[in-house]
Amino acid sequence: MRIEWGQCDPAGIVFYPQYLVIFDSSTGWLFERTGLTPSGMRQRYNMVGMPIVEVGVRFVRPCRFDDDVVVESEVSEWGRSSFTVRHRILNNADVAVDGFEKRVWAGADPERPGLIKGQAVPQEIIASLSDPTGATTIKAPPQRE
Amino acid sequence: MRIEWGQCDPAGIVFYPQYLVIFDSSTGWLFERTGLTPSGMRQRYNMVGMPIVEVGVRFVRPCRFDDDVVVESEVSEWGRSSFTVRHRILNNADVAVDGFEKRVWAGADPERPGLIKGQAVPQEIIASLSDPTGATTIKAPPQRE
Amino acid sequence: MRIEWGQCDPAGIVFYPQYLVIFDSSTGWLFERTGLTPSGMRQRYNMVGMPIVEVGVRFVRPCRFDDDVVVESEVSEWGRSSFTVRHRILNNADVAVDGFEKRVWAGADPERPGLIKGQAVPQEIIASLSDPTGATTIKAPPQRE
Amino acid sequence: MRIEWGQCDPAGIVFYPQYLVIFDSSTGWLFERTGLTPSGMRQRYNMVGMPIVEVGVRFVRPCRFDDDVVVESEVSEWGRSSFTVRHRILNNADVAVDGFEKRVWAGADPERPGLIKGQAVPQEIIASLSDPTGATTIKAPPQRE
Repeated sequence: MRIEWGQCDPAGIVFYPQYLVIFDSSTGWLFERTGLTPSGMRQRYNMVGMPIVEVGVRFVRPCRFDDDVVVESEVSEWGRSSFTVRHRILNNADVAVDGFEKRVWAGADPERPGLIKGQAVPQEIIASLSDPTGATTIKAPPQRE
Repeated sequence: MRIEWGQCDPAGIVFYPQYLVIFDSSTGWLFERTGLTPSGMRQRYNMVGMPIVEVGVRFVRPCRFDDDVVVESEVSEWGRSSFTVRHRILNNADVAVDGFEKRVWAGADPERPGLIKGQAVPQEIIASLSDPTGATTIKAPPQRE
Repeated sequence: MRIEWGQCDPAGIVFYPQYLVIFDSSTGWLFERTGLTPSGMRQRYNMVGMPIVEVGVRFVRPCRFDDDVVVESEVSEWGRSSFTVRHRILNNADVAVDGFEKRVWAGADPERPGLIKGQAVPQEIIASLSDPTGATTIKAPPQRE
Repeated sequence: MRIEWGQCDPAGIVFYPQYLVIFDSSTGWLFERTGLTPSGMRQRYNMVGMPIVEVGVRFVRPCRFDDDVVVESEVSEWGRSSFTVRHRILNNADVAVDGFEKRVWAGADPERPGLIKGQAVPQEIIASLSDPTGATTIKAPPQRE
């Protein structure tokens, strides 16, 4: 992706919270590999989202306006109801940003209306994101709603 | 308010969409003069929000990191179900940004579930925001929910 | 482009200043048709940027998380030192957002150091963006710096 | 500070990169305790900024639109040319977000024009931010530039 003017600060480099915006989007793109849309995922598994519980980032080199960067994202660890997505942003083949997001697979809490609770990550979600070929293994619903 | 580093772009001036973020917040602050919180307003009048339908802005002078600016906002026109908020951002007493937001007072559409529809702006809302002294004229609920 | 989670507000629709972020990026993408990078443009024409002087937007229909939208941008009017870019965001073939940015082609002011001044837009820039085929007509420097 | 509509996502809670925007601003507010403006600091110490090298955040409880939160920030560790700022965001007296930013006190690199290099943090900066009373101990220039 291209670094945009509005992502950069007066020092001419990316304003660091913008990298977290990229992480958040990239996690979404990664989960498209399941073959399900976000709303399809909610319907199929009765989940309500993947709230973040922790993030950690090292900023190794700056990125500037108009740089073409590559974002590499993968699930680096599966817990029972949580998982960790590792993101690396490469600028001209060098690592510029290296970080992780730890998220929870959350559903409605049956005992406390309005609240959410971690649920076991479905095995087929894990399988679809663990395939080293990146192939989609969950059959998507026939059409997007 | 103070202009923050993250609101500025590589030219060292405010990235212009950030002014619209300020407008949106300032409209919220203006409506606090009604004495109602956003959720209090939703409950009392059965409305669902004030979606924007039009915005227009002239950028007269740039604002820079660490500038102290003043935001002046007022409802400049009341329609039946819409209203226009005029915003001016002053930097060192000079107008830097001059613009307006046109918004709709919206409630749930009784005939089309899930959709919204413009509703007449309540007279007491108009009155509370038209008082030239800025006094709050709607009695707020005893406590915030 | 895909509407991202972080662009949307608690009503589930795009937070309107985010459309202006899209406009700003889209103007940048449009000017890539000149065959020059932003920094190449600065070097070749001794300009310093294209500051915005006015924006106007009508919000016709909301866009939601995960919608696929199309952004159409073109220079709708050329002045001597200013120009207007018209942007339309289409969601499912319907116009969701219709707006314009008026910008100035600015260079350093020779008489007031540190300040900028509108300059005549170069004819070849106008020509390259007026070609209905969208072809690039300015020869780019041999390599990006 | 008040949580604004535009900081929240479709789940109705703060979009997490927005917390990092708050961290960045809060570090700036913290350094105002030195009695120097950002540009005053640059002039007096010949530094160019405080680029971030690492960030880590735990998200304990969500914050929602219209919540009043308190941000507590302090330098938790001084290195030779780096320092760590700890930030905690309290919502209704409970910790909602707990994180840190590690930053470098950077000046121009004398041997590589255009690049920056960590420099020893001035003792009076450390002293001014270590005073438990929060008193300003560096005499500011007579007026802001």
